[in-house]
Amino acid sequence: MKKLINDADSVVADALAGMAAAHPSLRVDVPNRIVLRASGPRPGKVALISGGGSGHEPLHAGFVGYGMLDAACPGEIFTSPVPDQMLTASRSANGGAGVLYVVKNYTGDVLNFEMAAELCDEEGIAVASVLVDDDVAVRDSLYTAGRRGTGATVLVEKIAGALAETGASLAEVALAGEEVNARSRSFGIALTACVTPAAGRPTFALGPSQVEIGVGIHGEPGCARTAAAPARELVRIAMDAVHDDLPLSGDVLVLVNGLGGTPLIELYVVFAEVDAYLREKGATVTRRLVGNYITSLDMQGFSVTVCRLDDRLTELWDAPVETPALRWGR
Amino acid sequence: MKKLINDADSVVADALAGMAAAHPSLRVDVPNRIVLRASGPRPGKVALISGGGSGHEPLHAGFVGYGMLDAACPGEIFTSPVPDQMLTASRSANGGAGVLYVVKNYTGDVLNFEMAAELCDEEGIAVASVLVDDDVAVRDSLYTAGRRGTGATVLVEKIAGALAETGASLAEVALAGEEVNARSRSFGIALTACVTPAAGRPTFALGPSQVEIGVGIHGEPGCARTAAAPARELVRIAMDAVHDDLPLSGDVLVLVNGLGGTPLIELYVVFAEVDAYLREKGATVTRRLVGNYITSLDMQGFSVTVCRLDDRLTELWDAPVETPALRWGR
Repeated sequence: MKKLINDADSVVADALAGMAAAHPSLRVDVPNRIVLRASGPRPGKVALISGGGSGHEPLHAGFVGYGMLDAACPGEIFTSPVPDQMLTASRSANGGAGVLYVVKNYTGDVLNFEMAAELCDEEGIAVASVLVDDDVAVRDSLYTAGRRGTGATVLVEKIAGALAETGASLAEVALAGEEVNARSRSFGIALTACVTPAAGRPTFALGPSQVEIGVGIHGEPGCARTAAAPARELVRIAMDAVHDDLPLSGDVLVLVNGLGGTPLIELYVVFAEVDAYLREKGATVTRRLVGNYITSLDMQGFSVTVCRLDDRLTELWDAPVETPALRWGR
Repeated sequence: MKKLINDADSVVADALAGMAAAHPSLRVDVPNRIVLRASGPRPGKVALISGGGSGHEPLHAGFVGYGMLDAACPGEIFTSPVPDQMLTASRSANGGAGVLYVVKNYTGDVLNFEMAAELCDEEGIAVASVLVDDDVAVRDSLYTAGRRGTGATVLVEKIAGALAETGASLAEVALAGEEVNARSRSFGIALTACVTPAAGRPTFALGPSQVEIGVGIHGEPGCARTAAAPARELVRIAMDAVHDDLPLSGDVLVLVNGLGGTPLIELYVVFAEVDAYLREKGATVTRRLVGNYITSLDMQGFSVTVCRLDDRLTELWDAPVETPALRWGR
């Protein structure tokens, strides 16, 4: 195994030290594994907190900043953060208006965020949660009861984060997050498995001419394995699954996401096919992201997330954001 | 070979179609392979044009926009664009104040940009060129007389692009670009070779425990091959080579660049080590970028670029930029 690391045990701490050095806009508590805005909590603003296993960068720490998250809690690679971490983050990020947890639907994450909410409740910190479960590939998985949470997490964090900046209440921000999740669907396809630093070998075996259909972001297998095919056909498989679950029409936001090891030139090839598919269905891509936003270490492949927009969500999407991994105009 | 493509022959055109659909801020001429700002040339502003083989995305087309490039000319994968392409781009981007070519030092690119400059001259379009040759790993290479041009290209395009927006003359903008190049050095290390769509197999053979020291961005070999080592040691090899060539002190800008297939978490581990190395030498990292900016398809590994800043270059670096791959505050 070859990785740009010092030691499999220190990857998360070493990377957080790098984030601290790279981003003066962040306050990184390396021992406690909490990433906060350097500017501190804004009184009266709902604080958005997310977290989950590491290995999905830039998710979540790369989305801490104005217009998105107030704090991120990275766990070990592919391992949920713990309730104490979330509690400490909640205390630090709370501006008095309460805290919204954005939780990807994985059993460990769900249980730990629930426990953290109880601990916050004992301290008088109001907490609401949005559960993200956008991945239509599998109903239940190795790590999940119900659908997995993947690409829509980025959209929920962006749109709910924008609403929080306006001074909206905890209930309103939570509702916006739930609405984004309800309007979003995702599907992923992998060309290779990922290699975790601890294991040092691929998380599943995939032949030289096979692709994994409906893959998860932790190297968990998908719903089928097929022969490698042109991008157009792979996109059709993914988009048919999305469209079957949530018929696509009107204005949509598309995220074509690289799983970590995919060249950007290939993601643009995929985006062209997604765009063509949606035009064929009568939907219009009015907003889009192409790049690595929620990854699975060095996995080659892509996921596509589609969110049905309305005017209000479009406006919140367009609102300024200033984070290490997502930023646009004030 | 598994790639997210439709056909090895159509990768560049398909990806450009994707860029066109993804970025309304760009005007993409797919048949002629030219990427321009949708807003058109600004009268009196020097136009910056760059180009080179595809496979290095987001370079260069991802850097077209306010504060950076006016046009990009992508060639086939790892193949120089042609003079006609550059001539057409020059005609379209010229706002009457002349055109600056930013050329990475590879023999094909250099010859073709020279020929394009002659063609422009015949049409009365003033052209100057900046040759980027920042890679200290090899003196001459398979594709180069002299040092190769790598990561500093991003810095030259950003800083010269910022100066061009102020209405500076062609000579002034060219001089700023040359200054950035003179103050910058780069070095790359690969854990894996890349796979081109046409060849379908790694461009060089690297054992499961070997790394390529001083690797180029076209899959060309480096200057040595060693056993895999902790990130700290690999960073020291790269930074010693940089520091030997250009002693590092004062304020510096650091680009820790992924070669396309490297997880972001590993790039942050590398950045922490680069930062520690520079502190040890008495230099201060005052500006930085961590991510995939000049890639080599799916190659795993990193390059590091260091630029010695002064106040003027820092100010130009901080100036607003609005491109698909690099954007910050107006």
